[in-house]
Amino acid sequence: MSVVAEPAAKAAQPGFAGWMRAIQQEVEHALELRLPPAELDPRRLHEAMRYAVLGGGKRVRPLLAYAAGELTRAPLTRVERVAVAVELIHAYSLVHDDLPCMDDDVIRRGRPTCHVWFDEATAMLAGDALQSEATLVIVEGALADDPARNAELLQLFALACGSRGMAGGQAIDLAGIGQAFSLAELERMHRLKTGALIRAAVLLGAGCGERLDGEQNAALSRFADVAGLAFQVVDDILDVEASSSQLGKTAGKDALQNKPTYVSILGLDAAKAKAARLREEAHDALAGFGDRARRLSEIADFIILRRN
Amino acid sequence: MSVVAEPAAKAAQPGFAGWMRAIQQEVEHALELRLPPAELDPRRLHEAMRYAVLGGGKRVRPLLAYAAGELTRAPLTRVERVAVAVELIHAYSLVHDDLPCMDDDVIRRGRPTCHVWFDEATAMLAGDALQSEATLVIVEGALADDPARNAELLQLFALACGSRGMAGGQAIDLAGIGQAFSLAELERMHRLKTGALIRAAVLLGAGCGERLDGEQNAALSRFADVAGLAFQVVDDILDVEASSSQLGKTAGKDALQNKPTYVSILGLDAAKAKAARLREEAHDALAGFGDRARRLSEIADFIILRRN
Repeated sequence: MSVVAEPAAKAAQPGFAGWMRAIQQEVEHALELRLPPAELDPRRLHEAMRYAVLGGGKRVRPLLAYAAGELTRAPLTRVERVAVAVELIHAYSLVHDDLPCMDDDVIRRGRPTCHVWFDEATAMLAGDALQSEATLVIVEGALADDPARNAELLQLFALACGSRGMAGGQAIDLAGIGQAFSLAELERMHRLKTGALIRAAVLLGAGCGERLDGEQNAALSRFADVAGLAFQVVDDILDVEASSSQLGKTAGKDALQNKPTYVSILGLDAAKAKAARLREEAHDALAGFGDRARRLSEIADFIILRRN
Repeated sequence: MSVVAEPAAKAAQPGFAGWMRAIQQEVEHALELRLPPAELDPRRLHEAMRYAVLGGGKRVRPLLAYAAGELTRAPLTRVERVAVAVELIHAYSLVHDDLPCMDDDVIRRGRPTCHVWFDEATAMLAGDALQSEATLVIVEGALADDPARNAELLQLFALACGSRGMAGGQAIDLAGIGQAFSLAELERMHRLKTGALIRAAVLLGAGCGERLDGEQNAALSRFADVAGLAFQVVDDILDVEASSSQLGKTAGKDALQNKPTYVSILGLDAAKAKAARLREEAHDALAGFGDRARRLSEIADFIILRRN
């Protein structure tokens, strides 16, 4: 199924599928090289870190970082570090989110979750160490030549991960189980839980390159927010409509856990209409950039038209 | 009791007790200001973060950062950020270490542990967010004027936290429960588990100031390693000799959990002799610095002569 009334094949505009595959391979390779080898002690911990990160995932955040880097002609070595760092953070958040004290999930990316394959303590430490590894990547060289600008970008990254970002969103999510969230509360939760890191991927990717003016920055920031929101709306739709084997994770989990979602609050049709509207808003936000924003615009389509 | 045959009062050389109290208060204040307010949403998460960090602890790592900063005449605003960052990392590691899937401890600093007072999920997220907060503090301004030097210091910090540092040491610790560790294996574990962050506190504190030459760097590095090791040897002795109320955490836990310690491997007397030897080594390492290293030398005494 497609979440909006349009063939999914449209997402694969000439060149996009190939570009996406190339970036995904490059990121996989960079992650492979970056993570401590499985033979290095403590082996079990390093195996768990690699298990949690390698060989799976759509790599949406790295794709956004690269696409945003194209917008500002950012040096690829810098963008790669941003891409790796945000993906390591994303992977750590999934490992911790799947733990018994959180979502208690047993399947992820079509495989047993990290704590099922290893054990709870190892999974927790692997998540902890992945967060440190992300910091290590992001600080190991400048993202911008100007030290003050560089510090700003690093702060944006750390803020997106912590209690005013992703970790805060997870806490609100936890508190929301079985609660009646309003649409505004749901959006606030997602703006932190998934939105903050997606936003960081876009703004840091672009931040590695030529400076944008105030208006352009505002437009890119709007795009990042809309893309993050759209990602979540579609996630909620897929949780209802797709099968576990399509998703590679447990489908129907939200309803089972009585979690507030866009579908539970808006209904399925209105959620789909919202996804379509967000797609338009994403394209609108990019309109002023012309062809430089082509990849970002294609990723917005990919996010909204995906089936898993 | 005193772990070596010398009155504990010796640690309080003229001025040290006052200096220590002043730094502890300054760090408490800085942490208080730095942590998101408890009234900020998500409140429960912010309350848990503050509960885990504020109002307790010897602040050994911040003391080391300040003392090392004195050695190189480092600007206090920079040293303060190092002190806050290492203490946030230390606090997060305690919260995660106390969780049921790790050491399953219920008392810390004389109070219920974070997951007992809040809940497991909140404690895990609080630890996660404290790690991000530490990154935020450490990147938000330069530690050194030279960008390359600054990047080196940030990398040292991130490495000390991750799988080749503290988190790796926790993994080895876990794997060691019920195992027969050799002295070399035990030392390797502690070099990572507690040593790496103590070392980072010293080297980053000093790194904020005037550059040291190669020989001085080697000496400071030796001091940091010895101080970290001594801290752990004394911890193991106190776990056997002190009461829970003295320690503010569960005493006798190591033997109960059949954990390898310096006392279980060496015996109590040899462990005390080792602590005394490490104290001498710490002073020897500092000998070339003269009076500039006075505070570092006093902290070595404090670490080894402490009773909790």
